[in-house]
Amino acid sequence: MKNEWPNYTVLGETMHKWASDLFPICRSLTGAGVRESLHYLSSHLDGLEVNSVPSGKDVFDWTIPLEWSIEDAYVLDSAGNKVIDFKSSNLHVLNYSTAVDIELPLSELNEHLYSLPDMPSAIPYVTSYYAPRWGFCLAQEERNKLKDGLYRAVIKSKHYDGFLNYGEYFLAGETEEEILISTYICHPSMANNELSGPVVTTALANLIKQLPSRKYSYRFVFVPETIGAITFISENLAHLKSKVVGGFVLTCIGDERNYSYLQSKQEGTLSDRAAMHTMKSIVGDYKLYDFLSRGSDERQYCAPGIDLPIGSIMRTRYGDYPEYHTSLDDLSLVTASGLAGGLEVCFETIKLIEANETYKVTVYCEPQLGKRGLYPTISSMALDYTDVRTLTNLIAYCDGKHDLIAIAEKINVNARELIPVVKRLVDEGLLERYKKDVKAYQV
Amino acid sequence: MKNEWPNYTVLGETMHKWASDLFPICRSLTGAGVRESLHYLSSHLDGLEVNSVPSGKDVFDWTIPLEWSIEDAYVLDSAGNKVIDFKSSNLHVLNYSTAVDIELPLSELNEHLYSLPDMPSAIPYVTSYYAPRWGFCLAQEERNKLKDGLYRAVIKSKHYDGFLNYGEYFLAGETEEEILISTYICHPSMANNELSGPVVTTALANLIKQLPSRKYSYRFVFVPETIGAITFISENLAHLKSKVVGGFVLTCIGDERNYSYLQSKQEGTLSDRAAMHTMKSIVGDYKLYDFLSRGSDERQYCAPGIDLPIGSIMRTRYGDYPEYHTSLDDLSLVTASGLAGGLEVCFETIKLIEANETYKVTVYCEPQLGKRGLYPTISSMALDYTDVRTLTNLIAYCDGKHDLIAIAEKINVNARELIPVVKRLVDEGLLERYKKDVKAYQV
Amino acid sequence: MKNEWPNYTVLGETMHKWASDLFPICRSLTGAGVRESLHYLSSHLDGLEVNSVPSGKDVFDWTIPLEWSIEDAYVLDSAGNKVIDFKSSNLHVLNYSTAVDIELPLSELNEHLYSLPDMPSAIPYVTSYYAPRWGFCLAQEERNKLKDGLYRAVIKSKHYDGFLNYGEYFLAGETEEEILISTYICHPSMANNELSGPVVTTALANLIKQLPSRKYSYRFVFVPETIGAITFISENLAHLKSKVVGGFVLTCIGDERNYSYLQSKQEGTLSDRAAMHTMKSIVGDYKLYDFLSRGSDERQYCAPGIDLPIGSIMRTRYGDYPEYHTSLDDLSLVTASGLAGGLEVCFETIKLIEANETYKVTVYCEPQLGKRGLYPTISSMALDYTDVRTLTNLIAYCDGKHDLIAIAEKINVNARELIPVVKRLVDEGLLERYKKDVKAYQV
Repeated sequence: MKNEWPNYTVLGETMHKWASDLFPICRSLTGAGVRESLHYLSSHLDGLEVNSVPSGKDVFDWTIPLEWSIEDAYVLDSAGNKVIDFKSSNLHVLNYSTAVDIELPLSELNEHLYSLPDMPSAIPYVTSYYAPRWGFCLAQEERNKLKDGLYRAVIKSKHYDGFLNYGEYFLAGETEEEILISTYICHPSMANNELSGPVVTTALANLIKQLPSRKYSYRFVFVPETIGAITFISENLAHLKSKVVGGFVLTCIGDERNYSYLQSKQEGTLSDRAAMHTMKSIVGDYKLYDFLSRGSDERQYCAPGIDLPIGSIMRTRYGDYPEYHTSLDDLSLVTASGLAGGLEVCFETIKLIEANETYKVTVYCEPQLGKRGLYPTISSMALDYTDVRTLTNLIAYCDGKHDLIAIAEKINVNARELIPVVKRLVDEGLLERYKKDVKAYQV
Repeated sequence: MKNEWPNYTVLGETMHKWASDLFPICRSLTGAGVRESLHYLSSHLDGLEVNSVPSGKDVFDWTIPLEWSIEDAYVLDSAGNKVIDFKSSNLHVLNYSTAVDIELPLSELNEHLYSLPDMPSAIPYVTSYYAPRWGFCLAQEERNKLKDGLYRAVIKSKHYDGFLNYGEYFLAGETEEEILISTYICHPSMANNELSGPVVTTALANLIKQLPSRKYSYRFVFVPETIGAITFISENLAHLKSKVVGGFVLTCIGDERNYSYLQSKQEGTLSDRAAMHTMKSIVGDYKLYDFLSRGSDERQYCAPGIDLPIGSIMRTRYGDYPEYHTSLDDLSLVTASGLAGGLEVCFETIKLIEANETYKVTVYCEPQLGKRGLYPTISSMALDYTDVRTLTNLIAYCDGKHDLIAIAEKINVNARELIPVVKRLVDEGLLERYKKDVKAYQV
Repeated sequence: MKNEWPNYTVLGETMHKWASDLFPICRSLTGAGVRESLHYLSSHLDGLEVNSVPSGKDVFDWTIPLEWSIEDAYVLDSAGNKVIDFKSSNLHVLNYSTAVDIELPLSELNEHLYSLPDMPSAIPYVTSYYAPRWGFCLAQEERNKLKDGLYRAVIKSKHYDGFLNYGEYFLAGETEEEILISTYICHPSMANNELSGPVVTTALANLIKQLPSRKYSYRFVFVPETIGAITFISENLAHLKSKVVGGFVLTCIGDERNYSYLQSKQEGTLSDRAAMHTMKSIVGDYKLYDFLSRGSDERQYCAPGIDLPIGSIMRTRYGDYPEYHTSLDDLSLVTASGLAGGLEVCFETIKLIEANETYKVTVYCEPQLGKRGLYPTISSMALDYTDVRTLTNLIAYCDGKHDLIAIAEKINVNARELIPVVKRLVDEGLLERYKKDVKAYQV
């Protein structure tokens, strides 16, 4: 497959370039950083729309927060040297920080500083969205250099009525049943969590758009985590509950360590079955999490009353790699190859969802395969019957009770290899589609 | 919990005192010993009623046996020495023995003697309820001292039309749905099997009576084993089948060795789930039996056509300790501490059954916990999220499909610790009771 | 059981004699060999009928092939010596071979020769039913002796409009519900695969005929593999689907190595449960296959849309022994003892199917067993309660939800040992048949 379309190697490099361009932007739940990022992505995903929801609007149990802008932030020592400088890394400022301009001794400044003693070279990523605070984050080894004395802390930020923004991209298919792909765009300069998600989602949307046909419609959303997903669900609840038959959160999908999948709360959904079968077929040894290990927007999509069949496709999961939520989660951790692998798993999963159908054999008893050139005309112990076995196994379970994924699992083959075999048998008139109701085949 | 109400240490000593008082009474299926025992217990359980069912009455496939009374029993050697004496232990006489006054040589006497060669110091407990027999039980080491010669065997017992008696105590609750607690009172001087059952049941009834509120009604019965349970069921079948939603046989619940639970025949009932969760939470490593290991009155409560959801809460099960059904099952084997532990498991199980409800979260998506002071207002890798995790996990499974016990099992916490959390969330308006039909939630 | 009827030792010798008589006949899908074999079997199974279906008739996706007859076949070397001779083994000719009389050099002859380099002394069994071919099969060690030069290959065979034949034998029972036993008769001189099947089936039919009563009707078919089974099903589809409640393919059932069972596609059917319980009880360690390991006529009986509850009872399965489909699968591999063991498993399975019923206890709570002499009248730790335990366990699960096999599995005893116990309890009026719908008790 690697030599054919798509060329994942080239796409990996393209995605890494996108991530590099997006890296310096200071994103938060709201504000110019989100808009700038969406604008950049829309230049690579024609038709990506930006939705705006005003501050103060109630979305379920939450309220859209004020917009946040930040112009500059720094700490000066008594000699006027910038000992912490937002310009060198936007992680240096507590995300969503209130404004401040104050002189204070180190002892008091310390109460506003965040560092990680166990990871002395890492600037931690810290937020305070729902309580007003100001603060700076810095590497422990830098913090250790601060001498007693007077400092001036300056944060030039603003909170004001504005908008929460999220991106949305829709691809119509043959049916109105939708696959929902969700990723988030609220993290400042970090790469695996979370520029890998938006760039893989953008590349994936382009690939799906190029498919010669699409059974399902696809909706891609780029939301600020938690509040953005809640907002999106709040604005589309009835639609989502009636149309979405599968989907994924794409996050932490650009490093080269593990592959992992986090199952939907329901488990056994089409999403789960397709992703898990694809992971096993392509990756082999991947890490499987259940819903108790959740931590991203599947928390909202699978919440009681929402109950969408959404899982998460990841490489190394949030919280499971040491660089998580620090400045060390950078573009050396996320690589072109890592992104390419993440994209391949996603696209192969989607193609399997598209190909997955339930078939029924049209004749009683085994069909006569020999007369169709599908069976050796001579019997002998010396022949290799592997392919014939796959063929007859496939037919034996085309009983209207097993869809393609279920058959592949049952007969222990890669579902992808069954697709051309099914096509041949349909062409021969030996198989026909039984019915299409994906929900009926949830395990 | 140990410092709060109830004080299990004090209750253990109280129960041990009760057992000591009851120990010398010669109980059997019927007769004065049962009535005397029930009378004693009623002095510690105000309102305990004694039911009387006449000899000869048919109860299902059985018939109420004659009453049995015994005045004295002994064996004299040729010199007139009492070599076996009922007054020193009521186990010395075959329980329910016919009367006899006969002179006979040792060889013939031996056919009426019961001892345990493998446990030379133990007097065995032997009964002959449904065939007329006379006999004596004695320690093997005493038996070995008997010399050839003539003996006189005297048993001054009577069988006559009278009554089978059992005790019954009822506590009304908010609903008519009942929890049934059954224990038995037919064993003569043995402690674990079976004075532990009646004294723990008596203490438990007093604790449940003191609960500030009771969702369920409670019925406690003190029956002669087998025939008494059958009689009670026979007299209350329709009521039991329509009202009983859970319950337990309490037996062998006073030693300090194991804790154990024997599941109802159905398995997965509210009783089973509550007791097993409580055992795991409080005791940790307990022994779990299925219905094939049954041996007490759950045989009747779970019989085909009766099918009540009744399991057995025990410390070391009948038959699983060497002193079982011998004079060695005494008040050194059963201790205040052993009884206290048994009572604690029972009462905690009952409290869990009372607290167990199904809840549904009232808002879509995750609630905003921060604004309610339930979530840290600052995010950082350095925080300990354990409590928050329990909270969000609880909410995620308050979906109307999991009751409290199911959630606790799912998210691997002690259900008891969830109770105040649930209360807080209900007070906040975030959770509401979904519906109450315990049978609907049997696994 | 071995000393009682039936005498499996004697039956084993009888079956081996039948197999010896049948061994030399040259069978194929069609032709005189099949008829001759069925005629022989009918002399040992009075009432076995031979059905004839004309060549060219469509049966589902297949067409009845032409009849094949063969008079002689040989290869002469340039000196006129017969280097391959059909008369010495009918495996020497490619089964269903076209006629030929041709002179050709060894190099060209080689394209028509089949041998097994890894099994140099074995003549392979090769067929070409659905493409016209001529050929010879021989041992590799004989092939190695052929010198360059000119050879004459002669096969005096004919293909012509005729019939496909299969045998059918029916035993009426108390109900019209049928057990179907199928075996195949198309293999030439090989013993385990496949003379063991027809001879065990013939002996089994005679045993079932001698049962004092039969709850089920029995249908035995002796068909050419695949096309014969398809033909039989095609002619009886509606009947089979409405009447057949269980059954087996009997194949490879005469060697002394393993016992094995291949489950029906549905799994958990009465056939599967009875055969697996019997295998476990009689044989102990047997090999269990699922439907993915299928390879005989269960492929047709369990095909989508047919869905009969048919499994396969075998000793060593086709393909799992090295002599399979070669001249080494002979009457030293298949023994009287091997056949006897196969027959015993089959007949014991059938007897269990006949005995299997669902019972319900007629009284509430435990019955009073003592008054019926079924329970010790004296209780003592010294007694052995094993039989009583089996009895009370049996009664506890006679709840209308477990049939006899399910109870035996649940309480871990051999179902056969429960049969007289059930009879005693039915005679006592304690058990009654609950209802008889075998399909309702599929697991």
